Amino acid sequence: MIVEMRRGAAKEQVDQVIARAHKNGCEVQLNIGTDKTVVAILGSDTGRIPTELFAVLPGVESVTRIMRPYKLASREFKDEQTLVHIGDIVVGGPQLVIMAGPCAIESHEQLLKTAQHVQKAGATILRGGAYKPRTSPFSFQGLGETGLGLLDDVRQKTGMPVISEVTDPHHLDGMVGQVDVLQIGARNMQNYSLLRAVGQTGKPCVLKRGLAATVTEWLQAADYLLASGESQVILCERGIRSFETSTRFTLDISSIGVIKQSSHLPIIVDPSHAAGHYQLVPTLARAAVAAGADGLLIEVHPDPANALSDGLQSLTFNDFTRLMGQIGAIAAALGRTM
Amino acid sequence: MIVEMRRGAAKEQVDQVIARAHKNGCEVQLNIGTDKTVVAILGSDTGRIPTELFAVLPGVESVTRIMRPYKLASREFKDEQTLVHIGDIVVGGPQLVIMAGPCAIESHEQLLKTAQHVQKAGATILRGGAYKPRTSPFSFQGLGETGLGLLDDVRQKTGMPVISEVTDPHHLDGMVGQVDVLQIGARNMQNYSLLRAVGQTGKPCVLKRGLAATVTEWLQAADYLLASGESQVILCERGIRSFETSTRFTLDISSIGVIKQSSHLPIIVDPSHAAGHYQLVPTLARAAVAAGADGLLIEVHPDPANALSDGLQSLTFNDFTRLMGQIGAIAAALGRTM
Amino acid sequence: MIVEMRRGAAKEQVDQVIARAHKNGCEVQLNIGTDKTVVAILGSDTGRIPTELFAVLPGVESVTRIMRPYKLASREFKDEQTLVHIGDIVVGGPQLVIMAGPCAIESHEQLLKTAQHVQKAGATILRGGAYKPRTSPFSFQGLGETGLGLLDDVRQKTGMPVISEVTDPHHLDGMVGQVDVLQIGARNMQNYSLLRAVGQTGKPCVLKRGLAATVTEWLQAADYLLASGESQVILCERGIRSFETSTRFTLDISSIGVIKQSSHLPIIVDPSHAAGHYQLVPTLARAAVAAGADGLLIEVHPDPANALSDGLQSLTFNDFTRLMGQIGAIAAALGRTM
Amino acid sequence: MIVEMRRGAAKEQVDQVIARAHKNGCEVQLNIGTDKTVVAILGSDTGRIPTELFAVLPGVESVTRIMRPYKLASREFKDEQTLVHIGDIVVGGPQLVIMAGPCAIESHEQLLKTAQHVQKAGATILRGGAYKPRTSPFSFQGLGETGLGLLDDVRQKTGMPVISEVTDPHHLDGMVGQVDVLQIGARNMQNYSLLRAVGQTGKPCVLKRGLAATVTEWLQAADYLLASGESQVILCERGIRSFETSTRFTLDISSIGVIKQSSHLPIIVDPSHAAGHYQLVPTLARAAVAAGADGLLIEVHPDPANALSDGLQSLTFNDFTRLMGQIGAIAAALGRTM
Repeated sequence: MIVEMRRGAAKEQVDQVIARAHKNGCEVQLNIGTDKTVVAILGSDTGRIPTELFAVLPGVESVTRIMRPYKLASREFKDEQTLVHIGDIVVGGPQLVIMAGPCAIESHEQLLKTAQHVQKAGATILRGGAYKPRTSPFSFQGLGETGLGLLDDVRQKTGMPVISEVTDPHHLDGMVGQVDVLQIGARNMQNYSLLRAVGQTGKPCVLKRGLAATVTEWLQAADYLLASGESQVILCERGIRSFETSTRFTLDISSIGVIKQSSHLPIIVDPSHAAGHYQLVPTLARAAVAAGADGLLIEVHPDPANALSDGLQSLTFNDFTRLMGQIGAIAAALGRTM
Repeated sequence: MIVEMRRGAAKEQVDQVIARAHKNGCEVQLNIGTDKTVVAILGSDTGRIPTELFAVLPGVESVTRIMRPYKLASREFKDEQTLVHIGDIVVGGPQLVIMAGPCAIESHEQLLKTAQHVQKAGATILRGGAYKPRTSPFSFQGLGETGLGLLDDVRQKTGMPVISEVTDPHHLDGMVGQVDVLQIGARNMQNYSLLRAVGQTGKPCVLKRGLAATVTEWLQAADYLLASGESQVILCERGIRSFETSTRFTLDISSIGVIKQSSHLPIIVDPSHAAGHYQLVPTLARAAVAAGADGLLIEVHPDPANALSDGLQSLTFNDFTRLMGQIGAIAAALGRTM
Repeated sequence: MIVEMRRGAAKEQVDQVIARAHKNGCEVQLNIGTDKTVVAILGSDTGRIPTELFAVLPGVESVTRIMRPYKLASREFKDEQTLVHIGDIVVGGPQLVIMAGPCAIESHEQLLKTAQHVQKAGATILRGGAYKPRTSPFSFQGLGETGLGLLDDVRQKTGMPVISEVTDPHHLDGMVGQVDVLQIGARNMQNYSLLRAVGQTGKPCVLKRGLAATVTEWLQAADYLLASGESQVILCERGIRSFETSTRFTLDISSIGVIKQSSHLPIIVDPSHAAGHYQLVPTLARAAVAAGADGLLIEVHPDPANALSDGLQSLTFNDFTRLMGQIGAIAAALGRTM
Repeated sequence: MIVEMRRGAAKEQVDQVIARAHKNGCEVQLNIGTDKTVVAILGSDTGRIPTELFAVLPGVESVTRIMRPYKLASREFKDEQTLVHIGDIVVGGPQLVIMAGPCAIESHEQLLKTAQHVQKAGATILRGGAYKPRTSPFSFQGLGETGLGLLDDVRQKTGMPVISEVTDPHHLDGMVGQVDVLQIGARNMQNYSLLRAVGQTGKPCVLKRGLAATVTEWLQAADYLLASGESQVILCERGIRSFETSTRFTLDISSIGVIKQSSHLPIIVDPSHAAGHYQLVPTLARAAVAAGADGLLIEVHPDPANALSDGLQSLTFNDFTRLMGQIGAIAAALGRTM
């Protein structure tokens, strides 16, 4: 951490900075320029110290962080790539993992038909929402426990592991036995009660990026999970909010490369929520695979025009099959399997 | 809602749109241009129908909403300004309401001293956090129940009503008796489990704007509270995320005017979180009052340099007193009391 | 265009809207609901009428556009894909076009060496800047006319067509004879004097997206070029500004799909400026090709560590050759040639 | 500037950083931690050195700037507040300066009537556009030279100095004699040819903030003007682009405080363009004055419903007069005159 003092800062003010650094177990190196004094705060753990601690002291002009403020999710903490195991499936290795299914579970028939189709087309994990966080209280909120039951049944019939979103720590007891991967949605990325509770289950989980979260804050949220004992965390890019309105969100395709550099956690992409429209989903899905994502999370529905939620961004069976062909070709071109 | 068909859309496709409109209890008016057909979906409740319902149909080019998607929080639903009563204090009337105090409750002495000072300077409600949502799991997370006890004690000693943040529905039982106003933080604006639980308490609450939430989504979140039976909702603008980094967030000062036009709910401003630095807090506080905010939520600390959280954005007692003088003068210039 | 009147708007106010519509050559259809009156303004040319024209009238609540405000660049105006011819090269067809070279022309040797290398690796157009728009007046501003001369020389030696940025209408006379494709930079996307002047040359040009421009505004800027008589316009996505700081800009990968739907103009991608760092360039380049871009514009330098501008985002010869291999494989997987 | 080396960076890599620092006239201080080496680059002029110069070297992890990259516009370069003199009027002192008038000059009568009204209401400078940069090539583009003639005539009749936008260096010859203050619009903030040309006139100018420009980039653009010999620069905040769509732009009210800290240049606010709607203009204007702006630039029109451009954001004479009363009261409350 680099503390820049104001021009003309008094010696006692510099001393106060030094004292606070020492009190926090850090070393200090002083750079006394002609214009201003700069204090370097050194130590292996400065990433965990808030910059404020120094910024608030009198005579301080600015504080600049050098160590990243996340720790457990960083490559500096653990260099080796994390592999997340879901049954026989490994996320983060050479194989591209496709998770597909309806946004919301609507009925046994809808879910089973979709599962069978996406499985045949090459998906290995089934998605399906029982608890739906909706922007408006007047929208369909999901089937809840009934939905979980349907999901469990289809999981057994098809042998596909399932992923479903958790929105409330209260629901975890019911979900842990019926769901293979817990999903934390974008709106809950900084719901710390939920993060801690999910972390304590030890189950594999997908942590979606908040729609206004920087990559750094996303990895700090992952730190909450990892600090609770969880080790099986998959990150999921799903678009951030920008000024552009032709898509629902702006898929930050660069984040795939940034995460690969900064973190040991695998990263998948949800092209459906980013696009908001089925016509754009294949574009984003292909781009994600080419950029190096470890998998995809895609919404598929037997009859999008009559879906109870997110029909507009759901692929039909035919569109999904066609997309899987394109994705497979790109994966092969880059030396990955499916 | 206006449904624009693609050029050359078939008559059956238009009929499908019409049928779906009728099924949802809406009237339809058809505009058949030379280029394309446009279907107007009419009815007093179209704001509650998702645009997707039509966008997903074959042959549809675009769907444009005319009614706003929030309902209970809108001026169209209730034209008369909502007044929120907190003891003798009224938020939303001619009097400007100042809520001030430390970010986090640290000790009885810290809290009492601050309460006494801000009360003397003209604040009427005491703020103090017991449960602190922090970006990093390694930061101070608040005193929890112990903090609530201290808050309750100081409330009784000073007679000031208190506001404190709730981050988990589990905590509500403990908080309802000890806190006068529940605060829902920006990160939890779309934590719907929490919104419903808070709404059911019927207690006055402050709903902070999410850092990537549009005004429309903010009012939809208010709809969750109002739909749960709550009527005492105060909105709080606290800055949104933009590309600018010289402040922690970008205070959307315009939202005050927009809310006054669109909603009957009172709106206050938190200049401390928006600015992120004590030197900019007075600028934003003055602007908020001049723009027409109904109150302010300000962080004050007896010794910011040693605060356990958010010290950098906390005002000292002296700075707070000086600011209150400026604010009082502006309020008076605009015909408001304090 | 849909004009929504306020509740209780007077009949004369509605009549004023109708009169203005008729005056602008539009038809009108009236939807009189129980709550409010909605006026549909119909006609094939409403995209060119500003919404303000109606929004400013008394009694109007809101005006919503249905036709897009760009015209000449739209698929509705011209459905057939535009092919831009640069010598023998065609942009917008099945062949992927790679434009590569240094950010700034520094010397004859630097430029020739780079040209020969990128040509060998498969690039068909040479890029090189003579006039450099730099954020700071204290940075290297390019070699100007001298640079153009070097570019012309290398173009003749290698037979590669060249692209170079124009920043001032004054420079056009000198550039027209020495440059095959004129580039309009992101900062000048709404410099209308420049757009008109470039449009009048009739030379092929690349129009970069402004860093805060919506896709709609970008196509409106293209309308300026097309309205000046230009027909050879290539769009170039190069990243937009968002809150994320781990990359210099946020590549809006979705814009490729959106442009393909909305416009007949070809679109290429500049992964170098979006990434801002050489390590992320291949990620973005691969994603762009997979998403369906018609080409790439990439910065390559013989010795990035000593480049006079943008060295950090320039690929070395080796990195460029490796990337070309990956791109070629993805293009082939999607049925495109290189 | 702080250069952080990668873990395990070789000694020769560190030496290369040091050599480059020395070559650029900087001192170096080495911090060798257990984990990584950090090199502090010291010198009074490091703000002018691009961070890339070091970031591009092998073994470098990151480079962090401590000195701001703008120079001439900074308080560190010139601590004393700049006062801009326009005739007898001083911008940057205790007096609030109100510039008002129509967006576009439409006729002699329109301009004269508006000038007389705003002068009576307390404005001291007349605004009026002759060259209008419009998003669409099909919109009204201004009266050009004819407009300048009308402006000059009204200036002489009323004795009010005038401000008008320049969009092309070619127009400067004609404008210099007829316009008192040159305005550089948001879209041209980084049109460096224009900045240099305006700077060379030595006339007072208003530099609007680009809609995606950080405060730092804005001050770098001011550096272009100041480096060309200009000293009479007024900054103008007019809203930035964010995800919020209820206003045309998001007025960054905080920038007033940030500029006051970082720069010696005066700052005014344009509430009209930020709001995009006349109903919100007074809210923003009041906030700007309370925040400490040195003046306002406001659009006023005798008949907004029939304005040729920007009618929706123009105030009527009555609304302007009412606003001036409010502004005067706030200014007085804060010890400023009008």
